[in-house]
Amino acid sequence: MAILFFAGALRTDSSNKKFAREALRLAESLGKKGQFVDLRDYDMPLYDGDVEASSGIPAGVKKLGEAILAADALVISMPEYNSSISGVLKNALDWVSRIKPSPWDGKHTLLLGASPGAMGAIRCLYHARQIFDALGMYVFPGTMGLAKSYEAFDENGKLKDEKQIQQLQSLLEKFIKHAGI
Amino acid sequence: MAILFFAGALRTDSSNKKFAREALRLAESLGKKGQFVDLRDYDMPLYDGDVEASSGIPAGVKKLGEAILAADALVISMPEYNSSISGVLKNALDWVSRIKPSPWDGKHTLLLGASPGAMGAIRCLYHARQIFDALGMYVFPGTMGLAKSYEAFDENGKLKDEKQIQQLQSLLEKFIKHAGI
Amino acid sequence: MAILFFAGALRTDSSNKKFAREALRLAESLGKKGQFVDLRDYDMPLYDGDVEASSGIPAGVKKLGEAILAADALVISMPEYNSSISGVLKNALDWVSRIKPSPWDGKHTLLLGASPGAMGAIRCLYHARQIFDALGMYVFPGTMGLAKSYEAFDENGKLKDEKQIQQLQSLLEKFIKHAGI
Amino acid sequence: MAILFFAGALRTDSSNKKFAREALRLAESLGKKGQFVDLRDYDMPLYDGDVEASSGIPAGVKKLGEAILAADALVISMPEYNSSISGVLKNALDWVSRIKPSPWDGKHTLLLGASPGAMGAIRCLYHARQIFDALGMYVFPGTMGLAKSYEAFDENGKLKDEKQIQQLQSLLEKFIKHAGI
Repeated sequence: MAILFFAGALRTDSSNKKFAREALRLAESLGKKGQFVDLRDYDMPLYDGDVEASSGIPAGVKKLGEAILAADALVISMPEYNSSISGVLKNALDWVSRIKPSPWDGKHTLLLGASPGAMGAIRCLYHARQIFDALGMYVFPGTMGLAKSYEAFDENGKLKDEKQIQQLQSLLEKFIKHAGI
Repeated sequence: MAILFFAGALRTDSSNKKFAREALRLAESLGKKGQFVDLRDYDMPLYDGDVEASSGIPAGVKKLGEAILAADALVISMPEYNSSISGVLKNALDWVSRIKPSPWDGKHTLLLGASPGAMGAIRCLYHARQIFDALGMYVFPGTMGLAKSYEAFDENGKLKDEKQIQQLQSLLEKFIKHAGI
Repeated sequence: MAILFFAGALRTDSSNKKFAREALRLAESLGKKGQFVDLRDYDMPLYDGDVEASSGIPAGVKKLGEAILAADALVISMPEYNSSISGVLKNALDWVSRIKPSPWDGKHTLLLGASPGAMGAIRCLYHARQIFDALGMYVFPGTMGLAKSYEAFDENGKLKDEKQIQQLQSLLEKFIKHAGI
Repeated sequence: MAILFFAGALRTDSSNKKFAREALRLAESLGKKGQFVDLRDYDMPLYDGDVEASSGIPAGVKKLGEAILAADALVISMPEYNSSISGVLKNALDWVSRIKPSPWDGKHTLLLGASPGAMGAIRCLYHARQIFDALGMYVFPGTMGLAKSYEAFDENGKLKDEKQIQQLQSLLEKFIKHAGI
C-alpha cells in the first residue's frame, strides 16, 4: 500500500512541498510506494458550523479524507507560522476530523518541518504533535526540522546537502520499520 | 478608548460569540467602552503566499488589522478544535500578522474559551497563550474556560449562572486593572 | 517479558501509586506480567552536574535505569503540579537520561494521570508527552486522566467505579496490542 | 526595590548562573537594584507530601519564598533538560508554591535560557511560560535564548559578544518599563 505525503501550505513554491516531495523520492528509493498530494487541489472553505449544517462536508474535504483513509501512513511537512501550525493545515485538520469515522484515527504519521529561520519549525512541530496525538494518530517520535529552507533545495527541488538527504532517508527507514509498512 | 471583543469561530450561534458578547456587556457595566466584531464580517481567504505576492493583503484582513490596532486591549473567546485553536482563528492570526508593523504587537489580551465538553477549552487556551506570546502580546495569566457551553446561555445570550457572571466580571476587573486601561 | 509500572510522586498514599497499581492488576488480568516500582525506593539527589562529574551517576539512578531497560514497556501515572509534571518525576527523567545508552530510548509508554481536581492532570500529560517524545519513547496516543482522585479508590486501593475499571482495562488492551508485547 | 535573579541549575559553573549574573550587571547599569541568589544555597529535598505533612515546609524553601516575595520582579535563567525545565527548577517551583499565599503570585517575570546547543533552550522556555502563567505570574512575552552557551562567556563570566550584551540590555529595558519597576 502507499504512504501519503503532503505539506501544510498552499504556496506553489513552498519549501514544505519540496520537502514532502523529497521524502517521497527517498521513500521510493527504499522500495516503498507513495503519493504526494497538494492541499491546493482540495477546495475547502474556512470551517463554519453553519456551512456544515446546511450543506454537509464539502467535496474537497471528503476527497482529502478518502486519500488519508486509503493511506497506510502519512508524512506531513509543515511550515511554522507564528510559533504553531498554519491556519491552512489546521483548517484541513478541523474539516477532515468532521468525517466519521475519522480518517486520521490510528494513522502512523511522520512530521517534518521546513522554515527559513534557524530553528527549523521546532515550535510548530511541538504543537502539531499534541494535535495529532489528540486525533488518535501514532506520531513517530523522530522528526526533522529543516532550517534555512530557502537555500536548501536545488532548481529541481532536491536537497543540496548530502548529509540532509542521509538524515531524511535514515528517518524514513526508522519510521517505515516502526510503522510496519 | 476601547476594548475589542471577538470570537475564534464563524458559526452564527457560536457559544464563543455569546461569551465574548457577555464579556463586553460586563465590561460596559464596569464603565469601559468596547466593541464586539464578528470574524464572519471580515472576508478572508485561507492564507496563501502566492495570493499575498500577487494581490497583497486582502481588504478583510486589513480591516480587521485596523480594528485591532485601534483597540487598547483585546478579549478573545475561542473554541477548541482538536486540542488547539480553530483553523479559522489561526488563519486570521496568520494573515493579520503579515501587516507591518504587526497590529498584535504589545496588545494586552485576555483569552477566554467555551466548549461543550467538561474541560472548557483548556488545551486550546494553552496553545493560544504560546502563539499570542510569540506575537508580542501581553497575555493576561488569568483566563476562564466555560465548560458545557451549550447549556450556559439563556435565549438572550446571557450567562444563566450567577457565579459564572461573577467569575467573568471579576476576571475582567483584574485584567482591566492590570492592563491599565 | 514485563511491563514496568510506576508513579511520579513520592507520597506513600499517592493516588498515582494506586492508579499505577490498578493498571498492573488489570494488565495481569489480561495475562501480562508486570512489576510496580516505587520511586521512593530509588535514592536520588537533585540533579547536579558537579555531583555527576565528581561521583558519577548515583546508585539509585542506575538501579532505576536498569529496571527501565529490562522492561518491554512502561506505564507511568503522574500527578499534576503547577500545570506540569512533578519535579520529582522530572528529576528522575533527567538523571536516568544521563545513562548511555538512554534506557528511555524506544520504549513503548502509556501515560496516566490522577488529580484531585476536575481536569484529571490533562496539562501535565500534555507536557509529559512532549518530554517523553523528545526522549525517543513511543508514547501511546490514548491516555486516561482520573479526576477527583481522592474519592476514586476504595480502602484496598481498587477503583470503585466499574466504568473507570473498564476504561482503564480497555486502554491497556489497546496499548498492549499496539506495543506488540 | 529590587529584582531577584536566579538560575534553574545547581552546577557551580552553570552557564545559566552566568547568564543571570550578566543580566543583573546590566540591570544595575540601567540604574536598577537587584540580587543574584544561587539555588544551591537553599537546601531543599525532593517534594514529598509526607514530609510536608509531618515536618511542614523546609527552611530552605521558606527562605527562597521570602526572597521571591520581597522582590519586585524576577529574572530566571534556565537550562533545557530533555525539552523542558530542569527537575531542580520544577522542584523549587513545586515547593515554593506550597507556601500560602504563593510568593509567585502576580510577579513580573522575565525568562531567559542558555543551552550548549543551537536552539537556546527554546522548548524549555515554552514549558516554563505555561507553568509560570499557571502560577499567576506576569511572564514578559520577550525572552532571550542563548545558544552555544559554553563559548559565550569570558573568564570573568561576561558575555563576549557585544551584540548579545546589547540584546540582553534592550530586553531588560523593555521588561523594566513594562513591569513598571
